[in-house]
Amino acid sequence: MTREIDFYFDFSSPYGYIASVKIDHLASKFGRTVRWRPFLIGAVYKALDCPSIPEQPAKFDYMRRDLPRSAAYYGVPFSFAPTFPEALLAPARAVWWLNDRDPAVAGAFARAAYHAYWAEGHRIGEPGVTADIAAGLGVDRDELLAALGDQAVKDRLRRETDDAIARGVFGSPYIVIDGEPFWGSDRLVQVEAWLESGGWPK
Amino acid sequence: MTREIDFYFDFSSPYGYIASVKIDHLASKFGRTVRWRPFLIGAVYKALDCPSIPEQPAKFDYMRRDLPRSAAYYGVPFSFAPTFPEALLAPARAVWWLNDRDPAVAGAFARAAYHAYWAEGHRIGEPGVTADIAAGLGVDRDELLAALGDQAVKDRLRRETDDAIARGVFGSPYIVIDGEPFWGSDRLVQVEAWLESGGWPK
Repeated sequence: MTREIDFYFDFSSPYGYIASVKIDHLASKFGRTVRWRPFLIGAVYKALDCPSIPEQPAKFDYMRRDLPRSAAYYGVPFSFAPTFPEALLAPARAVWWLNDRDPAVAGAFARAAYHAYWAEGHRIGEPGVTADIAAGLGVDRDELLAALGDQAVKDRLRRETDDAIARGVFGSPYIVIDGEPFWGSDRLVQVEAWLESGGWPK
Repeated sequence: MTREIDFYFDFSSPYGYIASVKIDHLASKFGRTVRWRPFLIGAVYKALDCPSIPEQPAKFDYMRRDLPRSAAYYGVPFSFAPTFPEALLAPARAVWWLNDRDPAVAGAFARAAYHAYWAEGHRIGEPGVTADIAAGLGVDRDELLAALGDQAVKDRLRRETDDAIARGVFGSPYIVIDGEPFWGSDRLVQVEAWLESGGWPK
């Protein structure tokens, strides 16, 4: 049994951002670490044959209202990203490249990039912005920029997205603990209860 | 400003059922009453151009796992309805017919019918079963059975469904408090905080 918690997310997912602020602290409380697993939610929507949330007016209207309210409820700084919706490839590729070098740095980068996008409105989809954030954490800026253009790194993100879909991931955040899946930032209370009790009768 | 809380739901929605167990107590704690507003979620999915959850294998697999877990977390008796998915017209029509006579009885019936379906596996889609549940609450069985076949009552449910969609309802449960919408049983904690504080800064 792994002690890792799998945290599947897309940087364009604001509920993934809310969970990103909490998940490391929650995991460490129970002696766990977090494996940050970015994927491309556009591919998920395609696989589900479902319009994305921004393409569903009623749901999108609700989300724009629910998000600042939920962020305030959780005490998480939040400002609707001005460039949303968009595919955020650069930071997702960066996380996988960093995961192979130092998962703790990958996690720190993921949290920082999420914050830059959903609290400060930075354009993290641009490789230069992603590289700046990583450089602030001691990562070699030029080496990362080169990696972002590397076909192998691009393929890696695509493969990880396919693997996530094959595993049943259909939204962000999607958290798996010892095989038990939890979808959505609103499941964090159950994640905590689950870790506390070691699972409960179904 | 109305003191009513609008509770939009479909009887085939298990998360609506979980919320149905809690909502009246929550409302009365803050001097509110609940207006039970059944609609047909099939029409919502059609309007959204989105497959229903049972038609999305990954989401349905997750839901079958999340539901007993969430019910246990909330302390709500739960047993997956053996005849799900299906359109549950009879109890929804009954609620609207009862709403015009005695909203408190309509609410008691809605809770009882939800429990009969999602905790005890009864076929509440059958008019006779719906009538039995209502009769147990003092409703005239024959009068209700006649109403279930009445075109005006059928039209009423259809119109209420259209109105719900026009108001932005896209799922069940969908709760509106003084214009503020909350979607999903997992928002009950925010509903409570909202009622407690009279809304919070956005």
